[in-house]
Amino acid sequence: MVHAPPRPPAGAPPVRINLYSDTQTRPTAAMKEAMMRAEVGDEQYGDDPTVHALCDRMAALLGKEAAVFLPSGTMCNVIAIRTHCRHGDEVLAHETAHILASEGGTHASLSGVQIHPLRGERGMFTEEALRAAIRHRSRYSPPQRLLEVEQTANIGGGAVWPQARLEALVGVAREQGWATHMDGARLMNAVVASGIPAAEMVAGFDSVWLDFTKGLGAPLGAVLAGSAEFIDKAWHWKQRLGGSMRQAGICAAACLYALDHNVERLAEDHANARAFARGLRQIPGMTVEEPDTNLVFFDPSGAGVASGALVAALRLEGVQVSSLGGRLRACFHLDVTAAMVEESLGLIRAITARA
Amino acid sequence: MVHAPPRPPAGAPPVRINLYSDTQTRPTAAMKEAMMRAEVGDEQYGDDPTVHALCDRMAALLGKEAAVFLPSGTMCNVIAIRTHCRHGDEVLAHETAHILASEGGTHASLSGVQIHPLRGERGMFTEEALRAAIRHRSRYSPPQRLLEVEQTANIGGGAVWPQARLEALVGVAREQGWATHMDGARLMNAVVASGIPAAEMVAGFDSVWLDFTKGLGAPLGAVLAGSAEFIDKAWHWKQRLGGSMRQAGICAAACLYALDHNVERLAEDHANARAFARGLRQIPGMTVEEPDTNLVFFDPSGAGVASGALVAALRLEGVQVSSLGGRLRACFHLDVTAAMVEESLGLIRAITARA
Amino acid sequence: MVHAPPRPPAGAPPVRINLYSDTQTRPTAAMKEAMMRAEVGDEQYGDDPTVHALCDRMAALLGKEAAVFLPSGTMCNVIAIRTHCRHGDEVLAHETAHILASEGGTHASLSGVQIHPLRGERGMFTEEALRAAIRHRSRYSPPQRLLEVEQTANIGGGAVWPQARLEALVGVAREQGWATHMDGARLMNAVVASGIPAAEMVAGFDSVWLDFTKGLGAPLGAVLAGSAEFIDKAWHWKQRLGGSMRQAGICAAACLYALDHNVERLAEDHANARAFARGLRQIPGMTVEEPDTNLVFFDPSGAGVASGALVAALRLEGVQVSSLGGRLRACFHLDVTAAMVEESLGLIRAITARA
Amino acid sequence: MVHAPPRPPAGAPPVRINLYSDTQTRPTAAMKEAMMRAEVGDEQYGDDPTVHALCDRMAALLGKEAAVFLPSGTMCNVIAIRTHCRHGDEVLAHETAHILASEGGTHASLSGVQIHPLRGERGMFTEEALRAAIRHRSRYSPPQRLLEVEQTANIGGGAVWPQARLEALVGVAREQGWATHMDGARLMNAVVASGIPAAEMVAGFDSVWLDFTKGLGAPLGAVLAGSAEFIDKAWHWKQRLGGSMRQAGICAAACLYALDHNVERLAEDHANARAFARGLRQIPGMTVEEPDTNLVFFDPSGAGVASGALVAALRLEGVQVSSLGGRLRACFHLDVTAAMVEESLGLIRAITARA
Repeated sequence: MVHAPPRPPAGAPPVRINLYSDTQTRPTAAMKEAMMRAEVGDEQYGDDPTVHALCDRMAALLGKEAAVFLPSGTMCNVIAIRTHCRHGDEVLAHETAHILASEGGTHASLSGVQIHPLRGERGMFTEEALRAAIRHRSRYSPPQRLLEVEQTANIGGGAVWPQARLEALVGVAREQGWATHMDGARLMNAVVASGIPAAEMVAGFDSVWLDFTKGLGAPLGAVLAGSAEFIDKAWHWKQRLGGSMRQAGICAAACLYALDHNVERLAEDHANARAFARGLRQIPGMTVEEPDTNLVFFDPSGAGVASGALVAALRLEGVQVSSLGGRLRACFHLDVTAAMVEESLGLIRAITARA
Repeated sequence: MVHAPPRPPAGAPPVRINLYSDTQTRPTAAMKEAMMRAEVGDEQYGDDPTVHALCDRMAALLGKEAAVFLPSGTMCNVIAIRTHCRHGDEVLAHETAHILASEGGTHASLSGVQIHPLRGERGMFTEEALRAAIRHRSRYSPPQRLLEVEQTANIGGGAVWPQARLEALVGVAREQGWATHMDGARLMNAVVASGIPAAEMVAGFDSVWLDFTKGLGAPLGAVLAGSAEFIDKAWHWKQRLGGSMRQAGICAAACLYALDHNVERLAEDHANARAFARGLRQIPGMTVEEPDTNLVFFDPSGAGVASGALVAALRLEGVQVSSLGGRLRACFHLDVTAAMVEESLGLIRAITARA
Repeated sequence: MVHAPPRPPAGAPPVRINLYSDTQTRPTAAMKEAMMRAEVGDEQYGDDPTVHALCDRMAALLGKEAAVFLPSGTMCNVIAIRTHCRHGDEVLAHETAHILASEGGTHASLSGVQIHPLRGERGMFTEEALRAAIRHRSRYSPPQRLLEVEQTANIGGGAVWPQARLEALVGVAREQGWATHMDGARLMNAVVASGIPAAEMVAGFDSVWLDFTKGLGAPLGAVLAGSAEFIDKAWHWKQRLGGSMRQAGICAAACLYALDHNVERLAEDHANARAFARGLRQIPGMTVEEPDTNLVFFDPSGAGVASGALVAALRLEGVQVSSLGGRLRACFHLDVTAAMVEESLGLIRAITARA
Repeated sequence: MVHAPPRPPAGAPPVRINLYSDTQTRPTAAMKEAMMRAEVGDEQYGDDPTVHALCDRMAALLGKEAAVFLPSGTMCNVIAIRTHCRHGDEVLAHETAHILASEGGTHASLSGVQIHPLRGERGMFTEEALRAAIRHRSRYSPPQRLLEVEQTANIGGGAVWPQARLEALVGVAREQGWATHMDGARLMNAVVASGIPAAEMVAGFDSVWLDFTKGLGAPLGAVLAGSAEFIDKAWHWKQRLGGSMRQAGICAAACLYALDHNVERLAEDHANARAFARGLRQIPGMTVEEPDTNLVFFDPSGAGVASGALVAALRLEGVQVSSLGGRLRACFHLDVTAAMVEESLGLIRAITARA
């Protein structure tokens, strides 16, 4: 749902403060060092020791039997849905979920599934909403097969699903015989923010994945975890989709580096997000959603500046934020310092003051 | 959305008054006579004169270049969507549309499309709602390709789309480069109720179909119409889906008979529906939706009887209505007389009086 | 593989002797009588007693637990493959099988399967050929899931698979964990020709279907049989494909009539085919395949007449045969009498004598 | 078709001479240096300058308007077929083509296409064979849409398609209105071996791709090229399949390095292959196919050693070759020196002499 930034206005300087997306972090020198030292092999033949090390570590972290390395988070979703479902099945997800809103219609196209859009505050639905969506089984209805949850809920403001609610939802799924899948693009943000260990948080999910290219700062890659049988099937689809690579250990090494160095520090991003939200709130008329993690959604129109105008004005100062249907989003990650937070706030104050 | 009736309660008599669905009408002796007299051939080879006559007549009635005979209305929807769209495209339809709610997930499964559910009163959406659903074109979004409208809107209470609104919606589609498809399962009810000629009503739609097994009373069959090029492609899918039959003229003859004898009389069904609604409304506490055509939706709970209880009590009297998520639906068709309307009302009055 | 007849040459009389296809038989007056008398209901809701009677009778005839009525044989193949397989699986079939050569690419399109083409004489492959096609299981190969056999083998000259061979093939399938499906478009021809009861002939097959529109003479319909669980799943696809009809008992009644009156008489068609082949063989230079059932394939080029020339010359006399890649096919069915066989032979003798 | 090597026999030493596959080459220190220095950005947003540089260079090399970077060659095939074809279409390819034999049934599964297997010597078919496969257009046949050619033909022994034949095949495709696609996994081997410039060799193909992980030695990645419109559509599928990465310039840099340093040297691999074939031929009874490029197929059974026995005996000496249905394949690439060729030959001579 956060797509390519618009062309910069004429005369815009390079971006100095990138609040656009945590996907834009660049690998550091230390991470690249780790990549260069990686021992590699042909991962498609099961011969890459660094890929194996990453998958083993992720399986342990997430409390699952096995894991597979893939070039992107979208491919994790494609493969999980393809493996859990048959053509003609239905998936239940929030109406703002990435699988519905931002993956180009891929799941209808590649897996032949219908996604039933659930509503609810902050990108999350309740047990009641889920129960209300249960279909009477008949030849006229698609079999419901999979519950999907996005942790954190991106369009919901980076919200962390309350653990008790996750467990209640999983309970409904078990009762109905559904599989469960977590899109954990920003799972570690939820783990760090909540203090709940990852394996505990995802215990009820048959499959879960983590993206290494967001706050964790790796150049590419995501890891999908589940039962040994699930991962064995997932490998068939990795091959068929063209996600099987060769000496992928070079990239897996960056992910291992990120697990060692870039997880705990997500707390700084969350602190920056809170500081930014606090600062915004002091501007009269500004509407600000309280951040759970590293995303701050806000609406400047009450402060006298239209969203589009604020985006453009900030961009001319070298600051980039994203716009999602009227709301603005600022994203905090390892390339954003506390000083940049202050500087950005100062600029927004000045722009709104001029308005 | 109206599925198989529940098993009748123990001791229930045969159904005498069938308000369950207009799909349950049985061919009359005169219709069967017409079937027996039909000249037939191998329709798959283009050799069945009665099938040709039906298709020609329907193309003329609907103001389209060509038409194709199919075993069911669902197959009309499958083929139309398959022909208009490519895998990965998005279709825009009301959230209660038959294609979304009652066709078993077939369009994701067979055509790889995502259906975007629009909201709106009485099974119909507005131009504003449609415009609000237009997606920014990007690699993250499915291409929007087809606008679908169901005339009449079944779950919307058999509502007839206002002609000006239909035209406005088609205008949006043209502007966006979308194709347009009308699920005309009960199109002739809309035509008779509104007085607008069929060809005029569907002029803005690239494809449209009519079901002969509902109020028109034929045993099987539907006809899909569109441009000559569209119908030529549709034939490929008729063959691939297994919708090509052989001496199908026997069944087409029933449809021709229905066009001659069962269209104008839909006005009686509408009058019966209005009378039934009027009668219901005199029962204190009963909630009744005003019918546009042959369907009456009502909720007896305010009158002291739960929906399920009323369904069961009526069934014990030989009267069958259907239940759709709390609302009840009574359907009027050629096997329901004005006397049956009165008798049904009397029974409902008695049941609610006892409550 | 036998498609629409070419446009008749200018000045051609109507077809008097139709050796083109047994799909072109027209329902007799007695069959139509049976149709008119049929008790019917809404088959989609399980309420049509004649459809039930046909399905029960077919399940018994084929020795399976259950059966479902469908508008065509192609839909039987579509549903069987869809139900047995998952997207990405492989089906093993003869390279001339109807599912590969004459169903428009539907199985790749609708079921996402690859069909592995096996070679072998007369449209049939051997156990050795099947074993040679077994794939080493790997991520690079599609899982092999289904063995398909066409009884009789149409392009193989209407050949009847030797029962011992069928059993050996089924043995391989069982060993490999494959499901087994028989396309029994002309199954009763094989049963009558071989004297092997249908249930015994198809005992090793998980699914099997019979077409009623070929030698059996009904206007439309086929019945697919299998386990109760298989048929339950098949019904989901019947619904999704649009194969669910309404008062379909009218058509099912023709099929019941055919079972009572048109099975044993297939022996006459086979006798006519043999007589035709015998007669052709007396023409010097004519190449004739010995018929097992009701199809005679022959090549007149050695007798001095090109295939196309013979087709055209016969058509001018009101006799229609079909052409399949150089070979000609004459098909014998209930609209072809022994006298017509003699007359056709006489015409062919005269045409070749002139050459 | 060359899959994961079998588990090594107990007591086998590490592989010293890897003739198994050119996919197993490891990035050199110099290539890794280039990767580390790469300027990167978010390629999904069009912001990675190194990815852009690679795509621009490949478009120029192949004489196409545009190109796209993908994680694997299989994904290039998936996207090309998905973009050229519609569900239900047919692709024409050699029966040993990678798309048919080694991609897990993906094209039926993801693109709904049937692949028609053509026969011919050395993995290549003739114009006559292609013409013989042209289908009569009818509702019973899949529309033929795409001609696919694999350059070099892997299972054909690394054969280089004669340029005149390629042009004749393209001529047939143009005449029939088919698109043309080249699987150029080892295209540069064909270019170096034939002396024909890449752009000239692929001029008749609407799409073509090159794999960087084979003889070119990069750790991952392939580039697909075609018209600007084709690449724009391909990007939609890149997104949907999950092939969009982030700072992929790190990997693209290895490909650019390979274009600068590892193309001309493919001639050495070809010389090694010829020397190996020459040496084998001196062993009495050995059957050896003359190599066009870097693959040598041979059969030792005439020399008194079964294929499997030779593979195992070599593996115990630290030499790995692959086995494909009775034939053995030795693959020459940048990790194989002339001395290793001699050593391997010596070992084979000794093993066969002992037999």
